[in-house]
Amino acid sequence: MVKIRKAVKEIKPYDPPTENRKGKLRLDFNENTLGPSPKVIKAIRNATAEDFSIYPEYNKAREKIAESVGLKKENIIVTNAGDEGIRNLMDCFVEEGKEVILAVPTFAMFRFYAELRGAKITKILFNKDLSFPEKEILNAIKPETNMIILCNPNNPTGTKIERKTIIKIIEKAEENNCLVLVDEAYYDVCKETVIDLVNKYSNLVVLRSFSKGAGLAGLRIAFLTSCKEIISVLLKSSSPYSVSSLSVIAVLAALKDKEYTEKYIEEVLKAREFTLKEFNKIQIKTFPTSANFFIARFGENASIIAKKLKEKNILVRDRSRYSLLEGCIRIGVGTQNQMKLFLAELKKILEEVEYEKSQN
Amino acid sequence: MVKIRKAVKEIKPYDPPTENRKGKLRLDFNENTLGPSPKVIKAIRNATAEDFSIYPEYNKAREKIAESVGLKKENIIVTNAGDEGIRNLMDCFVEEGKEVILAVPTFAMFRFYAELRGAKITKILFNKDLSFPEKEILNAIKPETNMIILCNPNNPTGTKIERKTIIKIIEKAEENNCLVLVDEAYYDVCKETVIDLVNKYSNLVVLRSFSKGAGLAGLRIAFLTSCKEIISVLLKSSSPYSVSSLSVIAVLAALKDKEYTEKYIEEVLKAREFTLKEFNKIQIKTFPTSANFFIARFGENASIIAKKLKEKNILVRDRSRYSLLEGCIRIGVGTQNQMKLFLAELKKILEEVEYEKSQN
Repeated sequence: MVKIRKAVKEIKPYDPPTENRKGKLRLDFNENTLGPSPKVIKAIRNATAEDFSIYPEYNKAREKIAESVGLKKENIIVTNAGDEGIRNLMDCFVEEGKEVILAVPTFAMFRFYAELRGAKITKILFNKDLSFPEKEILNAIKPETNMIILCNPNNPTGTKIERKTIIKIIEKAEENNCLVLVDEAYYDVCKETVIDLVNKYSNLVVLRSFSKGAGLAGLRIAFLTSCKEIISVLLKSSSPYSVSSLSVIAVLAALKDKEYTEKYIEEVLKAREFTLKEFNKIQIKTFPTSANFFIARFGENASIIAKKLKEKNILVRDRSRYSLLEGCIRIGVGTQNQMKLFLAELKKILEEVEYEKSQN
Repeated sequence: MVKIRKAVKEIKPYDPPTENRKGKLRLDFNENTLGPSPKVIKAIRNATAEDFSIYPEYNKAREKIAESVGLKKENIIVTNAGDEGIRNLMDCFVEEGKEVILAVPTFAMFRFYAELRGAKITKILFNKDLSFPEKEILNAIKPETNMIILCNPNNPTGTKIERKTIIKIIEKAEENNCLVLVDEAYYDVCKETVIDLVNKYSNLVVLRSFSKGAGLAGLRIAFLTSCKEIISVLLKSSSPYSVSSLSVIAVLAALKDKEYTEKYIEEVLKAREFTLKEFNKIQIKTFPTSANFFIARFGENASIIAKKLKEKNILVRDRSRYSLLEGCIRIGVGTQNQMKLFLAELKKILEEVEYEKSQN
């Protein structure tokens, strides 16, 4: 057998969504549950044979994305969803054996790409109330730290990290020549950002995605913003054509119809408020969230509830075996009607589980 | 400034196609010059909102691809074009500082991803007549070699590597626990393959692409085939959703209309024969080719000729500064009509250049 790299041998696999999710109520991966703007679909239907056959071009997308976030083309690199952005950052700025700091529990792919790089990962737990462990993160930064990743709002906890906290971390990291990645995949929902600071600091990268609010998870397109020095390193070392030309067409159309995403998010925020109130009524504990998902604590029945929901074609993410999230499920938020459907099924299942327990 | 990885600092940038290639006669990147099957375009027009919003699923594509090459799903991983396949192989099977062997000149991305990995690259020159340096490659394989890459037919030389040569290399490599990647991106044109051997050897990976013959360069989808042990390592360590769901739809449609690609390639082979004869008539040396491109030696005027062709919206690839390819241009082959157009412009330019020289 050929020699397998040590870091790869030791990597823990990521646990991706199961297949056959179409037609189901997908509250498990924080996708847009309605789909993208009809203008995006129309733009794809108008794609020409040449769009399929020619190597993709990204200059226009970089310009239009830059415009949409008040930056310059030189501050933008488009990536094959957030994944490629994270992986490229690791490849550029993390030496094998050096440290990456993560506040956990968080998005599994941070840990995954750090392991693939062969980095030493320092995991710092969120506080018990799922608030952000500011002091512990600040204390952990040292000259051997190559990267710190902040997911804001954090997935899966929904925690918002305060701007002033992020700035403190960036500044301490800058003193240590350490890069800070702020993953703002859920910016459309949360509306808090540090993207305005990428030219102020030499070590800040902000990730944004079209997978969530804009409803383009299938099309694998996101972007990183940073100062032009960091972007030029990323451009030099990235795959030259990692994003499909059809995804570029979709994003250009999506940027012309931001109202669609805004309206969808308005609906999600109403649905989230309504859902959290209902959880309060049925006395299931939830945690504060700034995202289109939330953590609910079901206790020892969490896994069985997730399984029974799946049987009803409602998909949620069982996180009950994560540190701090014992007995918890992460639940995505869709439209109000979708959440009513979810709640009706959930209530039935809760009764069912109670009844089954009383029989034992 | 943040610390940049040493390997990244030292990497030589890749020189991708210029932008604004649409509407031009693209003989520079070996793309299909007509576009994909109309059935592919139709399938994309029928994509639903859910196809855009849902995370991609690959099981069906893996099954159908496996069927099309006489293998099992377990032998297949779909990749974000050949690029991601090469990069993942490096990440899985090449330790930093270990050796990758390349026969050069060859596809630049092999060198690029090996450099990104921090590998030691041993470059072995093709023979002067652009035939494959079998003996030199065999002699170079040693226990420190982690990977050997064979591009068959080789880009940019067009050289076909004989099956028995490839087998000798695989066997010597296997003795050294070294992986052999055979890049068959131009299989549709060349029709020679070692894909039937992936279950015979423990160290063979074959790359195939939909970018060339099938006309899907814009959609970034390719696949690797190997024994199931190697594929399972690649699956474990890859980005879980690196290929767009629309690209999956396109490939499923393309696999149902292989006749389209076959007809296109038939036309390309006729056009190639015709073009090489014309080059013979005008006494421009060409080299034997098994691909949809060929190398022609224009001598000291190569760069100026490429530039003048570009002014006429005909794109070719100036390789005149590559070792062994002094004064050479790589010319892609399209349809017979496209090549007639190209030849007419080329002849005018050759006269022009002669005239300009006589004036100096």
